[in-house]
Amino acid sequence: MATGKNITVIGVGLIGGSFALQCKLKGLASRVMGVDNNALHAEQALALGLVDEMLSLQDAVAQSDVIVLSIPVDSMIKILPIILDQVTHQIVIDMGSTKSQLTEVVASHPKRGRFVAAHPMWGTEYSGPKAAVQGAFENKSVILCNLEQSDADAVAYAREMFNTLNMRIIEMNAHDHDLHAAYVSHISHITSFALANTVLEKEREDNAIFEMASAGFESTVRLAKSNPDMWTPIFKQNKDNVLDVLNEHIMQLRKFKSCLEKENWEYLKELMENANQIRRIIK
Amino acid sequence: MATGKNITVIGVGLIGGSFALQCKLKGLASRVMGVDNNALHAEQALALGLVDEMLSLQDAVAQSDVIVLSIPVDSMIKILPIILDQVTHQIVIDMGSTKSQLTEVVASHPKRGRFVAAHPMWGTEYSGPKAAVQGAFENKSVILCNLEQSDADAVAYAREMFNTLNMRIIEMNAHDHDLHAAYVSHISHITSFALANTVLEKEREDNAIFEMASAGFESTVRLAKSNPDMWTPIFKQNKDNVLDVLNEHIMQLRKFKSCLEKENWEYLKELMENANQIRRIIK
Repeated sequence: MATGKNITVIGVGLIGGSFALQCKLKGLASRVMGVDNNALHAEQALALGLVDEMLSLQDAVAQSDVIVLSIPVDSMIKILPIILDQVTHQIVIDMGSTKSQLTEVVASHPKRGRFVAAHPMWGTEYSGPKAAVQGAFENKSVILCNLEQSDADAVAYAREMFNTLNMRIIEMNAHDHDLHAAYVSHISHITSFALANTVLEKEREDNAIFEMASAGFESTVRLAKSNPDMWTPIFKQNKDNVLDVLNEHIMQLRKFKSCLEKENWEYLKELMENANQIRRIIK
Repeated sequence: MATGKNITVIGVGLIGGSFALQCKLKGLASRVMGVDNNALHAEQALALGLVDEMLSLQDAVAQSDVIVLSIPVDSMIKILPIILDQVTHQIVIDMGSTKSQLTEVVASHPKRGRFVAAHPMWGTEYSGPKAAVQGAFENKSVILCNLEQSDADAVAYAREMFNTLNMRIIEMNAHDHDLHAAYVSHISHITSFALANTVLEKEREDNAIFEMASAGFESTVRLAKSNPDMWTPIFKQNKDNVLDVLNEHIMQLRKFKSCLEKENWEYLKELMENANQIRRIIK
């Protein structure tokens, strides 16, 4: 049963904090312990009631049935092996946005079987414990990677846990995950960051943008508020895939540019008609 | 008083249809007439109760106090002069996304004073009468351009009308409007269209994108569902400004590309930190 466990959340920010809230609400945990090396975040997580107590990594691991990792992916690849060193029966699940390097660094760890690699496709542009959201993850997808490397009981628990969160489980190998994540998440962040810089660079009259900014602008640029400490290591770990998509994206933008320069309105319209096919994917 | 008028809406799609609904709800109109050269849209507008009746352009203008134009901006520059030819006392207000060419084509029209150039900063990625939304325009901005060229009573009515719709009125000359619109609206559409094409080009496995597509992806790409018939003439009329912003945007993307290629993670982080300043503009 995926209920009533002692669960530790390492990194009590947006993802970890939101998960901790759901743990309580869904009965997944009888006790939620938090670990965070940011003292302010630790304090906030307690004050907001996200966790029952904040512990040291070592104490939390020792007292847990389940350990969930929700920290930047550069810290993830350092800390996961250390946690697995301490693990006896515990199940360790990560919630990071990249999977190849993480699964590689623990591939030959004697406790590899206790770990399940997961990426819940949920988030917002905000970060920290105060960004934690009640009802997060519901009806979203979660990608589970390289399950053949995890122990059967760990996989069974992870499935139950994400089912309890009402998530759709998709299985994929870590390599495919990182490739697809570059397309459906990472590139969106780069375009948003770059769009924000474009507008900030050219538009010195903040007031005009502020007054005129429409819902369309907001939706394309909102990801530019995302946390650079979280996104730098994602782009670093998924460099090759992100570069591939980014090159393709710049090429696609050049087609629009060329249509405008050459006043080729027919082809411009075709480019947009082709883009309309995205309706197949998002309703 | 801005109430109980005979109002004609030319183009009963997303914008015109949504405006027609508000006309009734807010008491702006006692009678709403529609004009649309698309027979299916005319039928739908009647069936959906957006308008009381559909008339020919000539009949509608003759029977109106106020005429609102919500058609693609290429049709706008053709039809506005024809309407002004017929106008006696009527007030004509457009709701298009570009303003320079439109104000130029009627600049020396003998009835120029009856016309008020407006751009309500509201819309969705859908189009046609079925896309009309109850409660549209509320709390959004509307840009009024070149008001010194409009008659005092026409300006006064337009102000009252947009106030009744609970919109924030901003005044700007047509040239400045088109420049700022390129930044806060037109470029967002180009990046969305291009992002959709990027993903559609590279991702042949629709299923993977479909299952993985997150809220972040959806929000950056949703404008790619927008109507090419509406957007082609906008880009055509605002070509120079859009090209300027697009060139800047491609340059900004190249900075991200260069950081990834050179593994310059410090500068990559700086680029994102700079982008975070968009928080000043969108909360």
